[in-house]
Amino acid sequence: MEGKIKKLEQLLRNDRFANHNNIRLISFGNGEAVAELTVSEMHLNGVDIIHGGALFTLADFAFAAASNSHGRIAVASNASINFFKGVSSGKLTAKAKELNSGKTLSTYTVEIADEKNSIIAFFSGTAFLKGEY
Amino acid sequence: MEGKIKKLEQLLRNDRFANHNNIRLISFGNGEAVAELTVSEMHLNGVDIIHGGALFTLADFAFAAASNSHGRIAVASNASINFFKGVSSGKLTAKAKELNSGKTLSTYTVEIADEKNSIIAFFSGTAFLKGEY
Amino acid sequence: MEGKIKKLEQLLRNDRFANHNNIRLISFGNGEAVAELTVSEMHLNGVDIIHGGALFTLADFAFAAASNSHGRIAVASNASINFFKGVSSGKLTAKAKELNSGKTLSTYTVEIADEKNSIIAFFSGTAFLKGEY
Amino acid sequence: MEGKIKKLEQLLRNDRFANHNNIRLISFGNGEAVAELTVSEMHLNGVDIIHGGALFTLADFAFAAASNSHGRIAVASNASINFFKGVSSGKLTAKAKELNSGKTLSTYTVEIADEKNSIIAFFSGTAFLKGEY
Repeated sequence: MEGKIKKLEQLLRNDRFANHNNIRLISFGNGEAVAELTVSEMHLNGVDIIHGGALFTLADFAFAAASNSHGRIAVASNASINFFKGVSSGKLTAKAKELNSGKTLSTYTVEIADEKNSIIAFFSGTAFLKGEY
Repeated sequence: MEGKIKKLEQLLRNDRFANHNNIRLISFGNGEAVAELTVSEMHLNGVDIIHGGALFTLADFAFAAASNSHGRIAVASNASINFFKGVSSGKLTAKAKELNSGKTLSTYTVEIADEKNSIIAFFSGTAFLKGEY
Repeated sequence: MEGKIKKLEQLLRNDRFANHNNIRLISFGNGEAVAELTVSEMHLNGVDIIHGGALFTLADFAFAAASNSHGRIAVASNASINFFKGVSSGKLTAKAKELNSGKTLSTYTVEIADEKNSIIAFFSGTAFLKGEY
Repeated sequence: MEGKIKKLEQLLRNDRFANHNNIRLISFGNGEAVAELTVSEMHLNGVDIIHGGALFTLADFAFAAASNSHGRIAVASNASINFFKGVSSGKLTAKAKELNSGKTLSTYTVEIADEKNSIIAFFSGTAFLKGEY
C-alpha cells in the first residue's frame, strides 16, 4: 500500500490544471483529503469574486485525492456544488470526507471554508472505482 | 437593453479565471450562450485527461453568460455535472440553454460536446436573480 | 429481447410504491419512457401543493423504466431535481430520455410537464448497470 | 415564535403525501428535523426494495420541517440524493441539518440511516425563503 500511496501522490503532484491554478494538496489518506487555494487575481470572475469553477476545482481536487486513497483508481462520475458566499481574497481550505464506499461507486462530501472557518461552498461527488493502480 | 448587453460583455471579457484557462465566450443572448476550450497541457489532470474542474469551468462560464443575458444580475446558487467521457485533446464546445426563468431563480442546462459532436459532460445550474446591472 | 421487455414490464407493473401513489407507466423502450400522475388529495403537502416527493417519484419511475429498457438491470445511483412551479391539480406527464449510456453507468433527464405543456420540474439521474435480467 | 412553531407543526401534520406513505415527523426546530419511515409493502418497487421516491420523500419531509423551522416559509428549489444501499424492511430515520442559511436561500443535508445506524442514502436540498408564515 505504501508504494501505491507514493504512486498516487506523484499523480496528484502531476495535476497540471491544479498547478496552473495554484491549488495545493495538503494531505490525503484513508478516504480523506485537504487541499488549499489562496485567492489571487487569476481566480476572479468579471465581478471580482472567485469564479465558481475555481471553487469547484479546489473541491474536486480534494475529492480526487480522497477517492483514490484506497489503492483503486477512482474516476469522477458526477458532482454537485452549492455556493454560499462570494469571496475575493484569503486562503480557502477544502476538506473531503467519505460518505460511502461500495464495490463500484464511492461518494464524498467536501466543505470549503474561508480563513474564519466559515463554510462558503459545499460539494458532493461520486466516483466510479476501477482496478488497482 | 443594448447598453446592458455591452456592459455584460465587458464583465464576461474581464473574467480572469476563464482567461487564465483559455476559455472563450463565443456568443450569448436571450437565455443562451456558447463557450469554447481547446484542450492543452494546462487543462490535464495527473492521468493526462482533462480535469473535471476545467469542464465545470467551461460549462459554468456558458451558464453565467446565459443566465445574465436578460439584464439582471444572476449569481450561481448551485450546479451539478455528469462526466461521460475523458478527453485529452481537441476543441470542446459548451452550449447553455434556459430551462426555466422565474422571478428570483432561473435554471439552465449546458451540454459539452467534443469535435465529433458527442456529448462528453452534462451540467445543470440554478442562479439567483438580483437587481439590474 | 421481447421476452426481456415483457419481464421488465411485469416488474414495473409490480412497483407497489408507484401503484400506491397512482403513478402510471404509459410507455417505455429504447432508452425512453413516459409516466403520468393525476394530482389528487393524497399527493398534497401541508400547504396544498403537490409534494416534492410525489414529483420525484413520478420522474424516478420514468427514469427506472427508461434506464432498464436495454435488457440490463439498472439501479439508481443518484438523482437531482429542480422544482419550478407548485401545482395543486391536473395531469402531470414525465418524459425520460437518455443522455448517455456507458458500460457501467447511464444518465437520463426527465422533464415533468403540466397539461399546458409547461415544464414544472426537471430531473436528472444516473444508474449503475448490472447483469442482464 | 411559539405560535409560529405550532402553526408549522399543523402544516406538517397536514402533509397528506407523507401521511399516505406512513412517514412520520419525530422532531424539528432550530434548523434541524428528524423523520421516520418503517418499510412496508407499499414502499417497495418492482424488485422488492424500497423505491427511491420513498427515500426521497422521507428526506424531503425532514428537509421541509428543518428549513421552515425559523419562522419563514421555505419552498424547495432543488435537491439531490445518493442511494447507497437497497433495503426491504426495518425502520429508517432521516436527520436533517442546516449547512447554510442566507437571506433568500438556505441549504440542508439529510442522512437516512437504517436500524444499525448505517447511512443508506444522502440528500441535500436548497430552499427559497419567502415571507413569514
